[in-house]
Amino acid sequence: MQPLRDVGWPAAIPPIDRASIVPIYQQIYEELREAILTGTLPESTRLLPERVLAERLGVNRSTIVHAYRDLVADGLIEQRVGSGSRVARQSGHPPRKAGVPWWVTLPPWRVGAFPQVLGELAATHHGTRISFVQGVPPFEPSPLDELSKSFERVAGDPDYVLSYGDSEGHAPLREAIAARMRARGCSTEPREIMVLTGSTQGINLVAQSLAEPGDEIIVEQPTYPGALLIFQIAGLRAIPVAVDDEGMRVDHVEAILRTRRPRFIYTMPSLHNPTGVTMNADRRERLVTLAQRAHVPIVEDDPYGVLATPAAPPLVAQSSDYVVYLSTFSKTIAPSLRLGWLCAPRTIYERLLLRKQSIDMATSLYVQAGVCDYLSRAYDAHVVRLRDELTARRKIARDAIAKHWPKTIRLSNGRGGFYLWATAPREMRARALLDAAERNGASFLFGEAFFAGSGGDHNFRLAITPVTHEQLIEGIRRIGDALAMTAAR
Amino acid sequence: MQPLRDVGWPAAIPPIDRASIVPIYQQIYEELREAILTGTLPESTRLLPERVLAERLGVNRSTIVHAYRDLVADGLIEQRVGSGSRVARQSGHPPRKAGVPWWVTLPPWRVGAFPQVLGELAATHHGTRISFVQGVPPFEPSPLDELSKSFERVAGDPDYVLSYGDSEGHAPLREAIAARMRARGCSTEPREIMVLTGSTQGINLVAQSLAEPGDEIIVEQPTYPGALLIFQIAGLRAIPVAVDDEGMRVDHVEAILRTRRPRFIYTMPSLHNPTGVTMNADRRERLVTLAQRAHVPIVEDDPYGVLATPAAPPLVAQSSDYVVYLSTFSKTIAPSLRLGWLCAPRTIYERLLLRKQSIDMATSLYVQAGVCDYLSRAYDAHVVRLRDELTARRKIARDAIAKHWPKTIRLSNGRGGFYLWATAPREMRARALLDAAERNGASFLFGEAFFAGSGGDHNFRLAITPVTHEQLIEGIRRIGDALAMTAAR
Repeated sequence: MQPLRDVGWPAAIPPIDRASIVPIYQQIYEELREAILTGTLPESTRLLPERVLAERLGVNRSTIVHAYRDLVADGLIEQRVGSGSRVARQSGHPPRKAGVPWWVTLPPWRVGAFPQVLGELAATHHGTRISFVQGVPPFEPSPLDELSKSFERVAGDPDYVLSYGDSEGHAPLREAIAARMRARGCSTEPREIMVLTGSTQGINLVAQSLAEPGDEIIVEQPTYPGALLIFQIAGLRAIPVAVDDEGMRVDHVEAILRTRRPRFIYTMPSLHNPTGVTMNADRRERLVTLAQRAHVPIVEDDPYGVLATPAAPPLVAQSSDYVVYLSTFSKTIAPSLRLGWLCAPRTIYERLLLRKQSIDMATSLYVQAGVCDYLSRAYDAHVVRLRDELTARRKIARDAIAKHWPKTIRLSNGRGGFYLWATAPREMRARALLDAAERNGASFLFGEAFFAGSGGDHNFRLAITPVTHEQLIEGIRRIGDALAMTAAR
Repeated sequence: MQPLRDVGWPAAIPPIDRASIVPIYQQIYEELREAILTGTLPESTRLLPERVLAERLGVNRSTIVHAYRDLVADGLIEQRVGSGSRVARQSGHPPRKAGVPWWVTLPPWRVGAFPQVLGELAATHHGTRISFVQGVPPFEPSPLDELSKSFERVAGDPDYVLSYGDSEGHAPLREAIAARMRARGCSTEPREIMVLTGSTQGINLVAQSLAEPGDEIIVEQPTYPGALLIFQIAGLRAIPVAVDDEGMRVDHVEAILRTRRPRFIYTMPSLHNPTGVTMNADRRERLVTLAQRAHVPIVEDDPYGVLATPAAPPLVAQSSDYVVYLSTFSKTIAPSLRLGWLCAPRTIYERLLLRKQSIDMATSLYVQAGVCDYLSRAYDAHVVRLRDELTARRKIARDAIAKHWPKTIRLSNGRGGFYLWATAPREMRARALLDAAERNGASFLFGEAFFAGSGGDHNFRLAITPVTHEQLIEGIRRIGDALAMTAAR
């Protein structure tokens, strides 16, 4: 083959390799690209017309068209009717500070105080300190006897263990979940269910799929720190709305919606984390009506709702079009399973599913099959026992607080669930209290973690579940001592 | 309390609730915000000076400072030295097409042909069709006997099942993984390991954490479709570089790096998916040297490397600073476990960890503990058996192809692993061939799925693992019939 230097083909071109697994158009594309990038073909060099080059190389004209089209897409050549193809001006991307190690020039990454908080939430706690930090279910009542039987049943089945499974989730599990949601007053169909590794994954899918960086969303104040981290990483701007003893201040949501169009409203209406409050019936109805009128969807995070007594139907029961529902088995069976789900209208299901696939392809089918078996045999009875245990713990904790804490510490109107949310007087900062408590051998989570922006300095959260009954009383007594010491200073 | 309408306090203000769990500064902030958003306090209204308002409400001045500061941050008020605080001009966000259902006005979402491809990769295949689609390990040799024993050992332990576990992963598993990487010539330390739900999750973490939308990256052509989906969702622009029988064309990478600064180079150097080729030693050394010189990190995806014979040391063995390494147990134990890992320099570990936490908090501790037990007893012997099985299958497949397929179908120089990559003559399109094969009762994945942008029309991939030996031969025969039919037309 004759060199084509004069008309825009690098001199040193190796012959086209027809036996190669690299398609011919790509071989041509890459050779031309290398020649342009290295300056062998300088700016404005005229390339051979497609037909001529095809003839000289002995390939179809469409092969050259294909290669040139890709070079145009890369901005490497320009095509104009009448004057053919020329090498484009190589503005290029200015090299990012050449000579500096790559990890110094990474994109900006602003996550503020989150590493500390999330580390605490996810960390395993050892030692003699009584830790009220993590929202894990109590060791008693234990699901482990029945759960290990369920896993034994599925562990030997290659169809469960040696497959990826569908990204949407294991079909029988989606049916079992939908049936339980229908029992709570929803009209859920299995095809609206997607199995996830937890409701946190659902928040991530929603934040990344339903909004763009710079968009506004409405969040409760205080709220789940994991959600705040996700929104911050997604570049969303959280408009906080206060939670009082009847739940989210829906009148404030209404005011905001008069002039703004947030992408969604993130709320935990039942046994809210961290306050434990449950939104009253009037506000629930008003919130969904507002969402429908303003065409703003609600993201209902419901990890604890099934543990409420009396149980309120989820918001999604009022509208399956305007509510994306998230829940989990982390609080009712075991967090280590990493198993949760979302229920979304079919209008956005595919969008969420693709992002789920891009995150982990599918949730563990082995775990799904095991839990599906457990649901069919033992789950509902376990939830009843767990609900009773939480009621008992709440009474023990409130009695101990009445005995050991000063009256100046106010508790929110928690109706159940895993947490107590306390407000200290203005002069007492929760971080100072935590320091004193840790010296006394007890720990909890300080309030700032639950606030978008500033606030929460005088609040703290106690998880009443990760300890024994005795530790619950003793830990509250230790915090009482810390309160006395902190107030005295 | 006296209404302050004239000087910028809404008339209808409810009294401050000192017993509320909502902090006082937030009550003030929200009331003012509602008043501004609803127009009760119009633009330019002067707010009371902080000190005056604090006196009237009987709160600390710092409480008002705090509330005003948050209003400034929201862009709702402006503060100027000398003239105090005024309601800012409310440009607001123009409401997005009011009256249109919310799912119609979602952010743009361009993922092209991926839903179809990913659905195929993750879907469970039923029926009588012989499917060569999914890259799952063969049913024999089975890890299930020993694996279920391992899970039995950990299923009853509340420390494993009733905890979240550390986001970084189970410490003994991180040690076991690091030890195995050291045995392959790396200098890996456990603190560089992060346990993931699979190597796909690692690609996601890297794409979202190390680059920004619009950034360029280098990918192999062809490459793993899951990676292409992730890069597309992350808004990254893939610069494709051909793979030939000796691996990635590193000379092309060199040419690109002369003028561009891609954020990273994504490569699968050992038993590359889909071609099965392994990058030769010269190219490996040159690639890492190039990366170091240009300060561009390499993302080494290595799901299959441990199955290679002879095994090449991973790229990360050459440089732990310039290579982020990803791998998985999906191909060597079971995909249903959703268990993989990354090995990253400490310079970027925290950044990746926070995003991992925002995706799923942590990988299942139950699964991690079970696999950790399995690693200590049975894994290495299983990998040896699996390697032998793959060698046997490759021979069976190549023999069947020699017998049943025309010589015009070229196979890539695959050295092992799960796949055969075929190139059909120019006049035969792989999609048409797939249609014919499916009518004959066999299926595979067409080549376009593996190409960034266009290309792959004449390529197709066979996974030789998800079938029995008999099905392997029979399926290849059926595709041979389809090839004859397609060529004849």
